[in-house]
Amino acid sequence: MNSYIKEGDNPDITEERKKASFNVDALTTFYHGGDKQLQNRREVEKYIEDHKELQDTRPTPFMSRDELIDNSLRKIAGMAKFNEMIDMNNIDRTTYFLQLVHVRDSMAFSLHYLMFLPVLNSQASPDQLSEWLPKSLSGTIIGTYAQTEMGHGTNLSKLETTATYDPKTSKWWPGSLGKFCNHAIIVANLWTNGVCEGPHPFFVQIRNLETHESLPNIKLGDIGPKLSLNGSDNGYLVFDHFRIPRNNMLMRYSKVLPDGTYVKPPNAKLAYGGMVFVRSMMVKDIANHLANAVTIATRYSCVRRQGEMKIGAGEVKILDYQTQQYRIFPFMSKVFAFRFAGQQLQEIYKEISKELKMGKLSQLADIHALSSGLKALVTFEVQQGIEQCRLACGGHGFSHASGIPELAAFSCGSCTYEGDNIVLLLQVAKFLMSNCTNSVSSGVCAYLQEKNSSKSSDLTTHQQYSDKQIIQDFEHVARKSVLRAFDKLRLTSQTCQKHEAWNRCSVELCKAARWHVRLYIVRNFLATIAIAQDELKPVLRALAQLFIFDLQVSNKGDFLENGYMKIQQIEELKEGVWQAMSTIRNDAVSIVDAFAIHEFELKSVLGRRDGNVYPGLFEWAKHSQLNKNDVHPAFDKYLAPIITKIRSRM
Amino acid sequence: MNSYIKEGDNPDITEERKKASFNVDALTTFYHGGDKQLQNRREVEKYIEDHKELQDTRPTPFMSRDELIDNSLRKIAGMAKFNEMIDMNNIDRTTYFLQLVHVRDSMAFSLHYLMFLPVLNSQASPDQLSEWLPKSLSGTIIGTYAQTEMGHGTNLSKLETTATYDPKTSKWWPGSLGKFCNHAIIVANLWTNGVCEGPHPFFVQIRNLETHESLPNIKLGDIGPKLSLNGSDNGYLVFDHFRIPRNNMLMRYSKVLPDGTYVKPPNAKLAYGGMVFVRSMMVKDIANHLANAVTIATRYSCVRRQGEMKIGAGEVKILDYQTQQYRIFPFMSKVFAFRFAGQQLQEIYKEISKELKMGKLSQLADIHALSSGLKALVTFEVQQGIEQCRLACGGHGFSHASGIPELAAFSCGSCTYEGDNIVLLLQVAKFLMSNCTNSVSSGVCAYLQEKNSSKSSDLTTHQQYSDKQIIQDFEHVARKSVLRAFDKLRLTSQTCQKHEAWNRCSVELCKAARWHVRLYIVRNFLATIAIAQDELKPVLRALAQLFIFDLQVSNKGDFLENGYMKIQQIEELKEGVWQAMSTIRNDAVSIVDAFAIHEFELKSVLGRRDGNVYPGLFEWAKHSQLNKNDVHPAFDKYLAPIITKIRSRM
Repeated sequence: MNSYIKEGDNPDITEERKKASFNVDALTTFYHGGDKQLQNRREVEKYIEDHKELQDTRPTPFMSRDELIDNSLRKIAGMAKFNEMIDMNNIDRTTYFLQLVHVRDSMAFSLHYLMFLPVLNSQASPDQLSEWLPKSLSGTIIGTYAQTEMGHGTNLSKLETTATYDPKTSKWWPGSLGKFCNHAIIVANLWTNGVCEGPHPFFVQIRNLETHESLPNIKLGDIGPKLSLNGSDNGYLVFDHFRIPRNNMLMRYSKVLPDGTYVKPPNAKLAYGGMVFVRSMMVKDIANHLANAVTIATRYSCVRRQGEMKIGAGEVKILDYQTQQYRIFPFMSKVFAFRFAGQQLQEIYKEISKELKMGKLSQLADIHALSSGLKALVTFEVQQGIEQCRLACGGHGFSHASGIPELAAFSCGSCTYEGDNIVLLLQVAKFLMSNCTNSVSSGVCAYLQEKNSSKSSDLTTHQQYSDKQIIQDFEHVARKSVLRAFDKLRLTSQTCQKHEAWNRCSVELCKAARWHVRLYIVRNFLATIAIAQDELKPVLRALAQLFIFDLQVSNKGDFLENGYMKIQQIEELKEGVWQAMSTIRNDAVSIVDAFAIHEFELKSVLGRRDGNVYPGLFEWAKHSQLNKNDVHPAFDKYLAPIITKIRSRM
Repeated sequence: MNSYIKEGDNPDITEERKKASFNVDALTTFYHGGDKQLQNRREVEKYIEDHKELQDTRPTPFMSRDELIDNSLRKIAGMAKFNEMIDMNNIDRTTYFLQLVHVRDSMAFSLHYLMFLPVLNSQASPDQLSEWLPKSLSGTIIGTYAQTEMGHGTNLSKLETTATYDPKTSKWWPGSLGKFCNHAIIVANLWTNGVCEGPHPFFVQIRNLETHESLPNIKLGDIGPKLSLNGSDNGYLVFDHFRIPRNNMLMRYSKVLPDGTYVKPPNAKLAYGGMVFVRSMMVKDIANHLANAVTIATRYSCVRRQGEMKIGAGEVKILDYQTQQYRIFPFMSKVFAFRFAGQQLQEIYKEISKELKMGKLSQLADIHALSSGLKALVTFEVQQGIEQCRLACGGHGFSHASGIPELAAFSCGSCTYEGDNIVLLLQVAKFLMSNCTNSVSSGVCAYLQEKNSSKSSDLTTHQQYSDKQIIQDFEHVARKSVLRAFDKLRLTSQTCQKHEAWNRCSVELCKAARWHVRLYIVRNFLATIAIAQDELKPVLRALAQLFIFDLQVSNKGDFLENGYMKIQQIEELKEGVWQAMSTIRNDAVSIVDAFAIHEFELKSVLGRRDGNVYPGLFEWAKHSQLNKNDVHPAFDKYLAPIITKIRSRM
């Protein structure tokens, strides 16, 4: 029945799987958004299982930087050989394929697919496309997207690419730029007829297509090792009087005519649509990293036994400790909360895309703000969660055998790229502030116009707490937070200049933005459960209850303010947290099984499906280069001579 | 005047240093605990500057595991050659020397000095010492301390070293065990005359002293790469019917007589004293890691300019953003709070050591609990802080050039080793619960017996908030939290077994323990400032104000409960936070200068004293092995053949 139970598994983990209150496959289908998505995944997994060329030769943590690069390029060559899985008409499958071949640490060329091609597609004129796209798809053009500079990330309008020599003006960071690309889309400030028209994308060849050498007047190189992504050659690029033809500017929207006249794009806001899409993907993707960590911590906590609760009764599974559950389960619930939010954002994006094509921009600001806020909140929480999962694995969480260090390192970049989280939260806040003055608010900001109630309902048990009341309470807190920031901003503006007032209120503004996003996540979590099949509802309810009540307990100050809720009610919600955790306890392994993460992706001895962790650790350690000889060469080189000398003196 | 200002520095950072409101050297002396400590540091730094053999040949992030090991052993050989800095009568200088030679990633043999020698010293009988100590000091015996097993960490009583073959029973983790030690102190359950007497330490030779080969019946090896410490050979050890003489048990306190009779140690609690000392060292040490991260983030934030606050006014230093200040400054204040707490703990330890020698154990439980709690709270907060500092550096924080990834990786182990944080907090809670029933409470728990007041003072401005009132308010919250846990535990115990009740209350119990520790930190911070020279008081006051008010604002729920404080008062404390931050802003660079962290330790391009970050990044990247050739060999190996093939088809 349960396909995760197999012979030879650790009995401790089998015992857990037998306790599941629901059908694991049903939850998997619901979680992944339907049968089609699931089938895509299975096809990709089977394909990679059948092609050794697409797999790592040994665990990546044992590889040096050189070996990581070699491993990454070898797999890319393998992909080029069997490229039937790259299908731009099946983005879901293609994305999963790329991810599962280049799991985390070896992502060379992801920018070719994820940035270079999409930007080319959307920004190049039809003529340009017909020239460049075929070569870019076939593989003779290998591209990247070079926007970030050594001295500039967030503030695009100050990009310095026109200067001649000044180290600060070099491009710095773009993936694959250092060594392996021969083209790049360069974002630079466009000067024409003596006027700066702001940042625009340019299609630039950077290496010789025959010899692969850097072109004259271009300096290219690797920026050195990073926290993660060391299978990729994130690089630098310095132009020194390098010239490109006018036609290399991507000219679908903005144009420069032969006489130098600049033609503006029809609507500058259209670009926001693409950003919404990228961020919705990011939110789902980053939730998946948390799912990996939660899977590892949960499975391991069922095979690790430590401590006797009752003297003489034998050591217990560490998942039976309330403190261990409280480390892992709130983040298990967040996987669902974030995943569902990302999925819903994608749905909304699809809807508004249709409207955008008809020139309607009414909902775009709402959704753009939401996507920015979600990205900021989710990426940060995921880092916190992965670290808690690491800690939940005790000492072994510090070993690369757990897989968690690699997960943590890879995913923490997401707090910075695609928009620094604080900058994004301030964008959300700006949007919220404009909605405070705007009296005809609708859509996601409608709650801002509603009247404050002075207190929550008279709930005495958490079972009485209705979805409607939950949403009202979160609306209350979000509204209070937004209006407090608004009032503070108005007051501060009376004593200093506007920009200074904004700066002095910015921590408060970020806080308001976070509540706006949390409200959305809570509302959407409850709405998603409503459409699940009945069999899944109890477990999803327990997860939602844990997520929501824990959010309230952890932020009780905001709910207690001015007596809106009473401390006894918070204490009651706390009981709800414990109750939800004890429900989840028995389903825990099956819940993480339902994430259906392939072992190629999990890359964890502690999290392996079969629970055979301890023999697995021995097998894993055999890969260590230090274990090639009993006596390590460094002993003979450094220590033996000294010891001999000391002994001779004795 | 300010010795940190030099010619050729980035003018943006010099400008900051000129703003300092205090003498940097005076703060350095105060922070490091006096002139003598500072002199020790300067001697060590000068010594290592003069001895290239003790320095890294290139930045460690560029090294593979093999190179890290080689680098580490080379420096150890260098130390053995110039061992005049190892002086067991000057522990401060010796410790700093070891730390500065083996900065973070390459700590091979630290266990020889930090665990093997101290345990031998304290646990071996005089006869044993005279036999083993000279060789251990001279370097022919290289030892480690092997306690942790693959399947057991925290729960010592269940160590499984007597079994024959079962992978779980192997020792797993001890530093230097895998390859380079020839001896180990093995902690194992002692069986004699058919009775298990619990875990005891044994002195065991594990490798041949001539050939360095593993002894028969012992399997030794490296456990593989870890998040950090990859210059060390953390290892495994499996015994298979290995025999040692009776006299190899360390027998200063417990003994086994020739007829097998077991002799108990005179007082089992004596060992606690040593743990208090180790933890006080850890707290100071880990606060120092945070000081490194704060130094990097602060200096970088003064040379990085991004975004115009006011259009046309030019880009501003990112430290001028309130959000950036709020990322860094609260952790700057925590460096002081934690450092002072660790220092004070060491003082208390010295006092009670005298009492212990006279057989008095009255204060030991208080201090042991405090040291456990401090270790748990500080190590966790430091991880949070280092990550915030990393984020504050934007994209470059993700590069090893920042130095922060290495700092983060190294220090996060401290949440687990020397006692898992949750286990430690529960020990504190146990101590607190016993003090709730004990009516004659004194010392650090006296506040538990005091009467609750129903509300705080009527403060209307934060300037009115007296130290006395602050302490009363923290006492109130700590007491409420402890008593709530106590009541819950009593109530729960009526419905289930005692151990189950304890488990069900454990999250609440941890929370109570945290408040107990915070109260100590706050009280000690205020007391430490009181003895500072007048010149330093304003800056230290601002730091304490930030630390304390932010703690209250972030945990406002606990202060608002039942109307103890009003929301207007919390809002006023928030104003106090912003005010403290704006005071600290102008002193920020000088405050971190005062930590006086040597560049050998900082290992950061972003945090360099001179602020010349961008040219520094280019210099740093030159070390990359990928930059040896313009065209990387992997291109010719994998990509060129494919591109040629595609092109031939076109």
